[in-house]
Amino acid sequence: MNVSVILPAAGFGTRMGGGNRKQFLHLDGVPVLVRTIRKFAAAPDVGEIIVAVRPEDQEAVAEMLAKESAGKPVRIVQGGLSRQESVENALRALSPDVELVAVHDAVRPFVDLETIQKVIAEAARTGAAIVGIVPVDTVKQVHLHKIRATIPRERLILTQTPQVFRRDILLEAFARARADQFTGTDESSLVERLDQVEVSVIPGSDRNIKITKPHDLKLAELFLSEEHS
Amino acid sequence: MNVSVILPAAGFGTRMGGGNRKQFLHLDGVPVLVRTIRKFAAAPDVGEIIVAVRPEDQEAVAEMLAKESAGKPVRIVQGGLSRQESVENALRALSPDVELVAVHDAVRPFVDLETIQKVIAEAARTGAAIVGIVPVDTVKQVHLHKIRATIPRERLILTQTPQVFRRDILLEAFARARADQFTGTDESSLVERLDQVEVSVIPGSDRNIKITKPHDLKLAELFLSEEHS
Repeated sequence: MNVSVILPAAGFGTRMGGGNRKQFLHLDGVPVLVRTIRKFAAAPDVGEIIVAVRPEDQEAVAEMLAKESAGKPVRIVQGGLSRQESVENALRALSPDVELVAVHDAVRPFVDLETIQKVIAEAARTGAAIVGIVPVDTVKQVHLHKIRATIPRERLILTQTPQVFRRDILLEAFARARADQFTGTDESSLVERLDQVEVSVIPGSDRNIKITKPHDLKLAELFLSEEHS
Repeated sequence: MNVSVILPAAGFGTRMGGGNRKQFLHLDGVPVLVRTIRKFAAAPDVGEIIVAVRPEDQEAVAEMLAKESAGKPVRIVQGGLSRQESVENALRALSPDVELVAVHDAVRPFVDLETIQKVIAEAARTGAAIVGIVPVDTVKQVHLHKIRATIPRERLILTQTPQVFRRDILLEAFARARADQFTGTDESSLVERLDQVEVSVIPGSDRNIKITKPHDLKLAELFLSEEHS
């Protein structure tokens, strides 16, 4: 299986406060983005990694990643104003022989190899697979700050990444989204609306956190200290 | 406003591993349950606190809480096998003059006074109010490990506690649930099915965590160290 990994890393980090962009924050001396890259570089199925960053970061990121991909090619492309635009730009840089495309949040460095391999294997089988966890909290539908309904927890997942798709399906999903001016919060939502393939769910882990807020960074430091002890 | 607070604290802590019941775990020398009690004891509207614990814990908990309620009466009642049963037992111990009942997870010690006061005020106004936060992750409906739909994030909340209700409404909701053998994951779901009152949502905080897993405990230690620094 020949998998290309796309890492959108052009976010502004507005939720972190102070304009710190979390993809470049150092965790125990190593930038978050580098930690994420290393996880995918270690996956045998991964053939190339494409990182979408803001134009002013391209040079620095190329240097940062030079020796971090275990010899696999890393392409740096220009990020867009939205995640979707960044991924779209990255899709244009795919190698011609790629069969599957995995999209992963640059700021989820704690994804484990087993999960990466499982979600790739499932997407190879079905065409589309994402990682998700069952919410711990009760989830409710709201409208104008009033509860409308409680949704049975076992019928829900909170999505994580990687999200992995057959190349042709993902390309069609992005083309269709562009044509319809549809914006989704993840890649799967673009694929779902094609109604062409069912998207499978692979169980994730509550360690596979997305580092978006200051306290996520604290948690990340804890995870690291546990790994080292 | 005369509010009674119910803290179900009879859980087995199966998610924590090793049979450690997290309500009794010490955070910086103080049991989680005591930290939670102190938050409610500090709220002017709270007139009494009712704690549901397992029979074998009653004596120890009574001693543990003796000086922690700022002089407000604390009643210890027997917990049930489920959260719902524990709350039901606590409802039987309500003082007759109570107007509002707040139910709060014993293992959410980081709730802040402002949130407690806001959700009480809203329930006083409308009859029913709970605390919730908008999910950070994309939420999807699943069936048999396949995605069915992506739910717009702005239409969802992840529930927290306190959940506060007019006494008569909550009592009727529990009576109805018992008659129908309905089990809910929170008190609001019992009230929602009465279809008698709309439940309001008050914004919570991502610090108001429920300590259920080992890494929640780590996060709790971090929050505490921040409070002290």
